[in-house]
Amino acid sequence: MRLSPETPYLFVDTDRLDRNLRSMAQWATEHHVLLRPHAKTHKCAQIAQRQLDAGAVGLSVATIGEGEAFADAGVDDLFIAYPLWLSEGKARRLRALAGRVTLAVGVDSADGARRLAAGLAGAPVRVLVEVDSGMHRSGVSADGAAEVATVARDVGLDVVGVFTFPGHGYGPGTARTDAAGQEAAALAAATAALRERGFTVSVVSGGSTPTVRLADPGVVTELRPGVYPFNDAQQLELGSATVDDLALFAIATVVSRSGDRIVLDAGSKILGADRPGWTTGFGRLPDHLDARIVSLSEHHAVVEFPAGATVPDLGDLVRAVPNHVCTAVNLVDELFAGSAHSDVLEVWPVIARGANS
Amino acid sequence: MRLSPETPYLFVDTDRLDRNLRSMAQWATEHHVLLRPHAKTHKCAQIAQRQLDAGAVGLSVATIGEGEAFADAGVDDLFIAYPLWLSEGKARRLRALAGRVTLAVGVDSADGARRLAAGLAGAPVRVLVEVDSGMHRSGVSADGAAEVATVARDVGLDVVGVFTFPGHGYGPGTARTDAAGQEAAALAAATAALRERGFTVSVVSGGSTPTVRLADPGVVTELRPGVYPFNDAQQLELGSATVDDLALFAIATVVSRSGDRIVLDAGSKILGADRPGWTTGFGRLPDHLDARIVSLSEHHAVVEFPAGATVPDLGDLVRAVPNHVCTAVNLVDELFAGSAHSDVLEVWPVIARGANS
Repeated sequence: MRLSPETPYLFVDTDRLDRNLRSMAQWATEHHVLLRPHAKTHKCAQIAQRQLDAGAVGLSVATIGEGEAFADAGVDDLFIAYPLWLSEGKARRLRALAGRVTLAVGVDSADGARRLAAGLAGAPVRVLVEVDSGMHRSGVSADGAAEVATVARDVGLDVVGVFTFPGHGYGPGTARTDAAGQEAAALAAATAALRERGFTVSVVSGGSTPTVRLADPGVVTELRPGVYPFNDAQQLELGSATVDDLALFAIATVVSRSGDRIVLDAGSKILGADRPGWTTGFGRLPDHLDARIVSLSEHHAVVEFPAGATVPDLGDLVRAVPNHVCTAVNLVDELFAGSAHSDVLEVWPVIARGANS
Repeated sequence: MRLSPETPYLFVDTDRLDRNLRSMAQWATEHHVLLRPHAKTHKCAQIAQRQLDAGAVGLSVATIGEGEAFADAGVDDLFIAYPLWLSEGKARRLRALAGRVTLAVGVDSADGARRLAAGLAGAPVRVLVEVDSGMHRSGVSADGAAEVATVARDVGLDVVGVFTFPGHGYGPGTARTDAAGQEAAALAAATAALRERGFTVSVVSGGSTPTVRLADPGVVTELRPGVYPFNDAQQLELGSATVDDLALFAIATVVSRSGDRIVLDAGSKILGADRPGWTTGFGRLPDHLDARIVSLSEHHAVVEFPAGATVPDLGDLVRAVPNHVCTAVNLVDELFAGSAHSDVLEVWPVIARGANS
């Protein structure tokens, strides 16, 4: 369908998307690691299907709501990679989801395990214990994992393995390689600790797009990268993606101009406000790599160009790449997808937008 | 209705909301300034109606889409405080909106004015020229405003005044008072420059929640604060709101705990990722003012408490205040509103969520 969406909107370059999906699937096959992509990035049935078609064993999600959305879309194997704390309502929804799909969930405390067992009331859900590999978010130590696993087993849960997210790999310098090494060490130690207590550890699950190709296939059995279908300005600046790997763009209009400074109609309500200290701005312009998004309001991106650069004119369309594609996608109800070699666009609904619980 | 929304969700304390609305309305009355609150903050018909009931002359919005949503909700006087660049589709929508409500829009360039006149084709829309008072986003100088106004008049537009947004008042130290002073100076100079060219300047419009009570009633005729119904962690840390003025909270569950560190299930997909360098974290916990949200993932807020503090337990509900309430509200489809003295909640739809264009 020939569509002319109004700016700002999110465009997916399907040639690049497919290439990114193929490349990651091939890497996983070559390294004998299963791929369980994190669907929080795209929240989109069309991309989930492409990932499964390329060989993914299932999807990772962050919330029960995301799981429900992808179950509705026909995905039948899901891992909620999160230490759920079950309210009565969430327990009911989790039991219902377990009746529809092959389901695993995370746990990182003895109390959480007891609460999970009570809430599940025997519903068939596999459990992975979350390990902290250095990000210091959720997760426990190797010994802590063995203790949580033991409590979980005692209360009747089906503990099948361990997982971690090496999110501290999002950083400059050696952060990526350091985090990947710590991921392998933490998962290996936790696996050994569980085996010592008599567990069969069949799933050893790691992350993340910046570290995935640095993961140790001798340790992990599956990986959960999220961002890799699209990539984003963070991946570009980390060196885990090239400009040619960027597959999602905010298409924006120049609405104001003053000298070497322009204002785009793409602000934090379409790009997201993510701005880690090590990034060079609030996103990047792939067609103007020497420009910087120096400030971001809700509906304004202020872009500065170096002296002498060719600055876009008022009314020009400009492509902007968000710093963090997952939060950008979550701001829209639909993605506009198409080949760069065609002017035909498809509308891909963001089926799990706002599915926070 | 007795509701038990699942965490994380956004709760509006209606007692505090009403007090904030009354207080601002009273200030405006006492200072003989009209109030045209910016609805991008709440995107909510129930709050718009309360603002109008309290004496607001109309609403400000940022996009045509927000204008359409509030026109649908019955609001009949809107100012799109943005230098629109009209595509064919946007021109059609703007003409339609002009047929439904009393409408004003922003302009900050001669080309934008010509484009606007062509797109409007005579539809009755008032025009305000945007002045840059020091934020260096959109807007022009006083002389520039007079030139833009003159072109706008020449192409048949109905220029009624000038506006600015002193967004550089969002900063520590004297930023608020400095920005308020620059706002008054810039608007006074632009008003004088337009009058010199024979314009009747009937609207002189300023912003913003941090600076509104510092505005010069001898210069401005109307003010467009957005955040004041709710306030947020930025306003708290700027000193433009107290803890008791906070009226919107993300209600979150403690899902993980390790010593003095807890993890809440409220991440950047409900709090927003806004994190200006001068803030102390990614939001605040109003019931634990000594705690800090030290990192924010999409579904995790990592909170650190000082040694010896009483740390919430796993499963506890905790109130978190976003840094920037406008982007938080834009992440949800509904707000849950109620009096702190009752357990009855109303559902207030976020009618303009995602209305970016």
